[in-house]
Amino acid sequence: MRIDIITVLPELLKSPFEASILKRAIEKELVEVHFHNLRDYVTDNYKQIDDYQFGGGAGMVMMIEPIDKCIAQLKSERTYDEVIYMTPDGETLDQGIANTMSLKENIIILCGHYKGVDQRVRDQFITKEISIGDYVLSGGELGAAVFCDAVIRLLPGVLNDETSALTDSFQDNLLAPPVYTRPSEYKGWKVPEILLSGNFPKIEEWREQQAYERTKTRRPDLLED
Amino acid sequence: MRIDIITVLPELLKSPFEASILKRAIEKELVEVHFHNLRDYVTDNYKQIDDYQFGGGAGMVMMIEPIDKCIAQLKSERTYDEVIYMTPDGETLDQGIANTMSLKENIIILCGHYKGVDQRVRDQFITKEISIGDYVLSGGELGAAVFCDAVIRLLPGVLNDETSALTDSFQDNLLAPPVYTRPSEYKGWKVPEILLSGNFPKIEEWREQQAYERTKTRRPDLLED
Repeated sequence: MRIDIITVLPELLKSPFEASILKRAIEKELVEVHFHNLRDYVTDNYKQIDDYQFGGGAGMVMMIEPIDKCIAQLKSERTYDEVIYMTPDGETLDQGIANTMSLKENIIILCGHYKGVDQRVRDQFITKEISIGDYVLSGGELGAAVFCDAVIRLLPGVLNDETSALTDSFQDNLLAPPVYTRPSEYKGWKVPEILLSGNFPKIEEWREQQAYERTKTRRPDLLED
Repeated sequence: MRIDIITVLPELLKSPFEASILKRAIEKELVEVHFHNLRDYVTDNYKQIDDYQFGGGAGMVMMIEPIDKCIAQLKSERTYDEVIYMTPDGETLDQGIANTMSLKENIIILCGHYKGVDQRVRDQFITKEISIGDYVLSGGELGAAVFCDAVIRLLPGVLNDETSALTDSFQDNLLAPPVYTRPSEYKGWKVPEILLSGNFPKIEEWREQQAYERTKTRRPDLLED
């Protein structure tokens, strides 16, 4: 898989891709991630990538030309399955979308900033608009990092233990059951006895029940699907 | 406002806080953000912060003792309004929660990793569990960065133009209307004429209608509230 991220702030994106699972996935060559600084696609001397909104109002808008040039350059080098724009009014990312996206070959992600991008960019170049949730961030970069993390960890070989991702919350529309580790007692707070019993069928049953109860209490909407 | 982030991967969190709006907010002393490496709170020589799950199963669980010590240390220094755990089965972050959180004084954020933290941590120390969306990430760090960005940009003085945050998506349960900037024509793609008219009452009317239409098409659920 190859992901090309177009941004005005490549430096913001750096550390999440240089640590932990994303770093390992890149080192193992399971994924390639490339950052493209929009300012490299500006022709004027001021490196201007945004401008005031037509019609007035607060907040700057990212201009179409540098984005067009950057996307055109990438598309001249390979075929892309999706050109994604990270935006709070896009389709809300969920585990199903992450699963689907993990099967793609080449993806471009455009990070919005300021008030967003010129609408013509969205109309002409974008194939999918994704939001990571119903809140506003100062730019699309953190959204892109979240998207990449959710997708890349699903690629075969990225997680050390393949079964670990399958028992995560949401993969079966249930939240994960509570987990405990040593010590079995800490300041008088004990681990549930069942988990220390060694009776694995019973433990499995307990976990399923706990997962169901937790989902029913916290997220009944997940059970309705 | 002061935010203390407890993590096993402080290096992952670095760059988002060293760029753009978060950097500026920290430089202007509108917010203090401190990272705490959990490994500094481990007493054994192996710096072990996680262990196998009781009852078996894939994935490691973060141990209670280092977390307890770190939180206790912080609480001995000041009073905290919330001790937040970032977890996919928490309450889903939205703009309302971000607004509420932006009014707090001191917040601790605990980032989970691997299979999560020992349930006793959640039962004993956590006052609020927050999810940034219905997908699983490799750790709570990106969630914490997203949470901080959503909250910090709302602090007075952080955004250059105060009105900019108020016209964002979600602040009024409507998605934002389309935005355009120069040039007014690019490769034959034109900006809607109304925006070039200079008739500001009409432009306002057009934007409200566009915001409503976009919300109705993309997110009818927002209109039901």
